[in-house]
Amino acid sequence: RYSGQVYIIHPTTDEIDGVKCYKSLDNIPMDLDMAVIAIPKENIDNFIDECVSKSIRIAVIITAGFSEIGEEGAIHEKLIVEKAVKGGIRIVGPNTMGVLTSIIDGKEFVNATFSPVAPIAGNIAFVSQSGAIGAVMMQYARIKGRGFSRFVSIGNKPDINENNLLEAISKDRATEIITMYLESFVDGREFIRHAQCTTKTKPIILVKSGRTESGARAAASHTGALASMDVLVDAALERAGIIRAQSIRDMYEIAYGFAHCTIPTGSGIGIISNAGGPGTLTADECEFVGLSVASLTETTRKTLDKILPSEASTANPIDILPSATPETYRSVANILANDKGIDLVMILVLPPVLYPIESILEAIEKANLQKPVIVIAMGCEGLVEDFSRFTFPIYEEPQMAAKVAKALVDYGQYQRRNIPPILSLKRQGIESQDRWLKYHEVKDCQ
Amino acid sequence: RYSGQVYIIHPTTDEIDGVKCYKSLDNIPMDLDMAVIAIPKENIDNFIDECVSKSIRIAVIITAGFSEIGEEGAIHEKLIVEKAVKGGIRIVGPNTMGVLTSIIDGKEFVNATFSPVAPIAGNIAFVSQSGAIGAVMMQYARIKGRGFSRFVSIGNKPDINENNLLEAISKDRATEIITMYLESFVDGREFIRHAQCTTKTKPIILVKSGRTESGARAAASHTGALASMDVLVDAALERAGIIRAQSIRDMYEIAYGFAHCTIPTGSGIGIISNAGGPGTLTADECEFVGLSVASLTETTRKTLDKILPSEASTANPIDILPSATPETYRSVANILANDKGIDLVMILVLPPVLYPIESILEAIEKANLQKPVIVIAMGCEGLVEDFSRFTFPIYEEPQMAAKVAKALVDYGQYQRRNIPPILSLKRQGIESQDRWLKYHEVKDCQ
Repeated sequence: RYSGQVYIIHPTTDEIDGVKCYKSLDNIPMDLDMAVIAIPKENIDNFIDECVSKSIRIAVIITAGFSEIGEEGAIHEKLIVEKAVKGGIRIVGPNTMGVLTSIIDGKEFVNATFSPVAPIAGNIAFVSQSGAIGAVMMQYARIKGRGFSRFVSIGNKPDINENNLLEAISKDRATEIITMYLESFVDGREFIRHAQCTTKTKPIILVKSGRTESGARAAASHTGALASMDVLVDAALERAGIIRAQSIRDMYEIAYGFAHCTIPTGSGIGIISNAGGPGTLTADECEFVGLSVASLTETTRKTLDKILPSEASTANPIDILPSATPETYRSVANILANDKGIDLVMILVLPPVLYPIESILEAIEKANLQKPVIVIAMGCEGLVEDFSRFTFPIYEEPQMAAKVAKALVDYGQYQRRNIPPILSLKRQGIESQDRWLKYHEVKDCQ
Repeated sequence: RYSGQVYIIHPTTDEIDGVKCYKSLDNIPMDLDMAVIAIPKENIDNFIDECVSKSIRIAVIITAGFSEIGEEGAIHEKLIVEKAVKGGIRIVGPNTMGVLTSIIDGKEFVNATFSPVAPIAGNIAFVSQSGAIGAVMMQYARIKGRGFSRFVSIGNKPDINENNLLEAISKDRATEIITMYLESFVDGREFIRHAQCTTKTKPIILVKSGRTESGARAAASHTGALASMDVLVDAALERAGIIRAQSIRDMYEIAYGFAHCTIPTGSGIGIISNAGGPGTLTADECEFVGLSVASLTETTRKTLDKILPSEASTANPIDILPSATPETYRSVANILANDKGIDLVMILVLPPVLYPIESILEAIEKANLQKPVIVIAMGCEGLVEDFSRFTFPIYEEPQMAAKVAKALVDYGQYQRRNIPPILSLKRQGIESQDRWLKYHEVKDCQ
């Protein structure tokens, strides 16, 4: 889908997939922006020289066998990077899976990765110290239908690292949510400094591996980086408002939640279910992660009593019974969203239902609630053609929904602690939150 | 797929789906075994009378609106059950989703549930206090290709309850693994007594909801049962060797693990991965749940050094690099399984690979390891046609694989504590573990 020109350099072949191959960079008649290098490591030094004389600005080195394999590799890596930087080239990698950049509504789409899954565009950026995990994230994006603005596999990161990228991506208009997989920090203090500024406007969801002793040992042998003491990492991340996910799946699902959900202004969760057991499990999961399954007001319960059959339960979780119609879902969701103790509405849909699952999801969509909504469609796989057309996030299980809700609530709390309410902004003579942020950035975040 | 005869009773219709309808039970010329009742609750009393005079032995009451909705419903339920029991009828329900029983290699297959998903046969029994969760489990079974021997939705359980069923299923030849979803216990002591006997030979995996205050409140309003103090529940379950799962998905995946895996004799985990990051994450997850990512012996490492490229890591987790061939997987798995510190082998397969994922899975199959194997195929959705044809369990993520491995290891430890090793059996004049179990059962478990 890339609209620009791609040139292939190959020592022996004349053509690959219909694209003409050149013997060397010199033979290419045009100026070039980026080189993607996948040649034996012994030949890279010479090729970097060619890149310098061609005035290329970025080289992505896919080739592995450098600092991750020991002393000798590290020396080689250092030499290559020094040569490149001196020649005005920035290096991604070595030992990278490549880079991807998408412009959502424009035409440009660069996929210089060797992922077997075709990436889809979206507003999530992903910076990864593991290439394989990039491919896994692309797979999740394919399934959920929400993809990436930028993806950079940083590999051994001797030049371009998580800090450069965090700084760049925090100002990137195509990115609203930042995800990261890291095994080590090149400079922890700098990372936290960049993150503190970024999380004021964009959530950062991070998987930091090497949580345990075994993991840390493994990380060290893998990218040649020293893993950090985990408890310190935890404290620093929390201070910077970073959401730490435990697994790659959690990271993607939380990012997907941020992409589809507004930020709740409190931790009160209201639950609607057409089946008792799953409603109970959801209440368990919410309280387990530290959310509050709020008591409903007398008004809310009375209003619900009027429209629900006597077998239904109007306590939170609200059991609207398997006989619930799309209209039941719509009206109950509305009543619940109007309860002042409720900051986020969780809606469970479980078969068997008397109406197509899609008609229920459409009714929830139409309800147009003024509070964040998360839908849990349990056991619905194969019963809905396209989940991605709905504006709210949809999860298969209460456990994941509760994790995502907790991340949203935590991020909201962090933001409110940092950003004074509008009133105090006015007192400072600053009118909008945007302007305040700008002011704040100038002062603290440069 | 049911090979017997089904009769329909309907007050006004003559035919449903080509099956003749009768006006009443009396009109049916044959003897009947079981009645499945889905009529308004007001008519159930009379219908139970008809069942008694027809000498029916089991009545499954789908109809809801009894003890789960309050005092009045509870009185009605009690009357119906008393009448039925007096007339020699056992009651499943009311407020049930129905029952299912499959004979794997025979012809009989009864599906008297209203699940929208077609169930598949297997060696897992499922007893559920929530009907909807039965449908969810059937969905999981459809996806993973490992289904149920028996499924009973016990509803309000005034007659047939989890204790009767546990006793019956523990002796059931078609069942090797027992799963349960409970919101309350009718008699906790009896449950633990039955479970202690059952877990000697069959694992029980249980989701007990009402873990938290909110969940407990919800459970009470849903099936009219008082939820138990959770910390006591935890202690009692552990003593009986029951595996407590946190979510329905976890419960199914653990059961699927037991169905495909032998029980490890220790907690030493060996990890093989073709990508560094996911190997690190797996080591983290294993140590996090309490497993040990064992150090490999000098012999193992030397043998690995001989067959792996210098870029590979021969520490545990073993990084066999993206270039690994199916043969690399086979031989490394074999070497790892022969290490005396390793009790369970975890193998990660991540795209991109140079060989079809299936050929790698086939190579692992052919390795025919003498130790339990769990495969983690991350980001492989859509790249393998049929995961269910492999004999080892396959998970999408390290997190789930670690949970399952922990359950297997814990169950093995529980069994070894209870069952003396073969040597001491011989001293007692008992030759095989089977015979010892029989002896033990006679003494303790009647």
